[in-house]
Amino acid sequence: MLQFNFSNLMQDGIGGNGLMKDDFKRIDGNALNTAIQSGKSPELEFLDLPGADTSAIKEMGRYAGKFDNFILLGIGGSALGPRSVLEALSPFHNIKSKPKVFIYDNVDPMTLHCIMDAVDLKKTVINVITKSGSTAETIASFMILWQKLKEQSLKPADHIIITTDPVKGNLRKIAVDYGVRALPIPPGVGGRYSVLSAVGLLLAEAVGIPSGDMLKGAVDIHNKCIGRDLWQSPAFLFASGVFLMQQMKKRDITVMIPYADRLKPFSEWFCQLWAESLGKDGKGLTPYPSTGTTDQHSQLQLWMQGPEDKVVVFLSVEDYGADVQIPAVFRDMEGLSYLSGHSLAELIKVEQEASEIALAKNGRPSITIRAPKIDAYHLGQLYHFFEIATAATGLLTGINPFNQPGVEEGKNLTYGMMGKKGYEAKKEEFVKYRQRKGKLEL
Amino acid sequence: MLQFNFSNLMQDGIGGNGLMKDDFKRIDGNALNTAIQSGKSPELEFLDLPGADTSAIKEMGRYAGKFDNFILLGIGGSALGPRSVLEALSPFHNIKSKPKVFIYDNVDPMTLHCIMDAVDLKKTVINVITKSGSTAETIASFMILWQKLKEQSLKPADHIIITTDPVKGNLRKIAVDYGVRALPIPPGVGGRYSVLSAVGLLLAEAVGIPSGDMLKGAVDIHNKCIGRDLWQSPAFLFASGVFLMQQMKKRDITVMIPYADRLKPFSEWFCQLWAESLGKDGKGLTPYPSTGTTDQHSQLQLWMQGPEDKVVVFLSVEDYGADVQIPAVFRDMEGLSYLSGHSLAELIKVEQEASEIALAKNGRPSITIRAPKIDAYHLGQLYHFFEIATAATGLLTGINPFNQPGVEEGKNLTYGMMGKKGYEAKKEEFVKYRQRKGKLEL
Repeated sequence: MLQFNFSNLMQDGIGGNGLMKDDFKRIDGNALNTAIQSGKSPELEFLDLPGADTSAIKEMGRYAGKFDNFILLGIGGSALGPRSVLEALSPFHNIKSKPKVFIYDNVDPMTLHCIMDAVDLKKTVINVITKSGSTAETIASFMILWQKLKEQSLKPADHIIITTDPVKGNLRKIAVDYGVRALPIPPGVGGRYSVLSAVGLLLAEAVGIPSGDMLKGAVDIHNKCIGRDLWQSPAFLFASGVFLMQQMKKRDITVMIPYADRLKPFSEWFCQLWAESLGKDGKGLTPYPSTGTTDQHSQLQLWMQGPEDKVVVFLSVEDYGADVQIPAVFRDMEGLSYLSGHSLAELIKVEQEASEIALAKNGRPSITIRAPKIDAYHLGQLYHFFEIATAATGLLTGINPFNQPGVEEGKNLTYGMMGKKGYEAKKEEFVKYRQRKGKLEL
Repeated sequence: MLQFNFSNLMQDGIGGNGLMKDDFKRIDGNALNTAIQSGKSPELEFLDLPGADTSAIKEMGRYAGKFDNFILLGIGGSALGPRSVLEALSPFHNIKSKPKVFIYDNVDPMTLHCIMDAVDLKKTVINVITKSGSTAETIASFMILWQKLKEQSLKPADHIIITTDPVKGNLRKIAVDYGVRALPIPPGVGGRYSVLSAVGLLLAEAVGIPSGDMLKGAVDIHNKCIGRDLWQSPAFLFASGVFLMQQMKKRDITVMIPYADRLKPFSEWFCQLWAESLGKDGKGLTPYPSTGTTDQHSQLQLWMQGPEDKVVVFLSVEDYGADVQIPAVFRDMEGLSYLSGHSLAELIKVEQEASEIALAKNGRPSITIRAPKIDAYHLGQLYHFFEIATAATGLLTGINPFNQPGVEEGKNLTYGMMGKKGYEAKKEEFVKYRQRKGKLEL
């Protein structure tokens, strides 16, 4: 089970910059419980994912797992979720295992060119993921791959798996019209809350990751967080801590630093969840993705001595699943020999704690989450924990954590330039902007 | 040549949130020129890198290029620089080209385990990079690989290339004592300003990237930036713009968003440069790494409607070196067919501009840098441009952009726990911390 330590948010841990127990009286733990348990908001459907029937996903996973290559088309949560599952639980996947996985979450033509070079479409399954069925980036790459299959006289229905809304949208229509395999994303589950649906679990099953363990982990963390007193719920305490640090101490940047290379994409998954959920109405918490120890040599300076605007979330690991001893070489050189007899796991864990201490001594707050190991069970806990904590933070800050109205304008302008019907005015606006620009061009 | 557009920093471009020309009167362009040209600060030696003799690097690159695998050991700038060169200029490198490259910039035991699984040491060259020769993470992995070579009866001198201080430090001593190949990092060049030294150029040469073109690009951008009037120098205007946005508008987060998958590591390189250079004395600018279009589905919501604390730096690309047409499939479906006849390059460029317009309409400032293509010449320009701009921003904000005093405490605590002589008190402190902790543990 994940362990959560909040000591370094408190005055006990970091001195005057910290919070006091009394500060938490501003938080109504019962209201949080009620809001989340009532299930009134349809977007809370992500809470039901751990208990859902996944037999269809498993069956589809067996089908997809027989191919040599697995191309995933999706963007935002549709890519960040699956990628973070894959890299955490199958490190160096494409060097060691099959099917090889290529996640295309952009419209960069060079990347698609390289993927096409690397795979034989005959031996490739393509999972296209967009809940709405109309995400321009995903649809563009889907159309290209559909055509490429046809050009090679391959049947799209044999090579494509669609993950989309159970009823609505272009992709659902295509699934029906062309007899293409399809998995549903529950209607209330938004992209950034979807990793424990078919979005993240199909890829997991296809490469042999036990998705059931992820869901079991999610159930267990759910029970550790919900229906409990504020001081007994790690998710509500996390939400309350960052909320109070923002309200009372003006700390509005949340740094996520897992100490494991395999969790770097998890950091990025968290950043989308946090940024898109909580950044609106002129307010919001800005996430900052990081990886330890690596980014101690990139960002730690800023956290230690930069502006007092951050709360650092350490994610430490007990068992790395491997270890390497540092041998007794160069015994005559003091600058090296002190490391002999220690191991890499020991070093990385000491560095994590050293950073935590150094920050605390400097009055800089942090939260530490300890994972016994990086496996499906604990990764499932991490996802579900942060989804609950994000929803709770939205409730506390009065921000709706489930929508993203701010991205519409950019989409509409793109539609205009791409000639989508009804967006002619946006095209005009775009063209005018181009003419106006260039005043301060060097 | 890179093009720089600053229109969306100004009231002309974004309305009342923008700067006025008069605001720039606070900036003394001559003083910037003098400070940077005088060369008084020894750390300005990075400015001389583009003109340095690189024949030794090229020769070493030919040697390294004959191996099947290239392992790089380094952390911070010693890894971010080389990785960003490799990924930008040789996309999908390990699938398409040799030597395969493995950059180990952590002490995660699982990662080293996977690398050891993937390579045959007999056919592997190891480039170990630390200027001081005492970076714990790098030294630990170096000791392990030294021993592994010995265990396989391989001569370390045949397989290792050391990149370090020309005279001082443990690694220089080892190079001399054991006859190991070595390249120098000029004494005044700090890790995060070192990509155009042997740090970044050896790997480039080993994989066939023309490092001379990178240096040529750096020279050309140097001349476009230095010795010029403020309004004619993109680097000084960049520095002044972000400085004024911080001082006058309280915008202290700098988002870097290149629109190309290949430039994602470049974004991370920039973030180290920016964070570690400018975050100290309780002040600083926080960078935020991003990739377009991908992170429009992760971060754009926050930039558009979150707190008014960001300046977005767009990096757009004219020629992607490849393009893919979107075919005329699903003609009867309006939600898809509007994309037919366009290309991916067209779509990604339109999306970049659409985001720029959407932000501007919302009064949110940005800077746009246009690269004609992603090649060695323009990448060299980008590195040198941002190094100059960072140094100039340090001068404006009164922060020394060349040191990192804030990371010492964490290092000392680690030394203590690893048993390094002279750090016994730090070990005591560490142990006491562990005993004290656990008050708010769930």
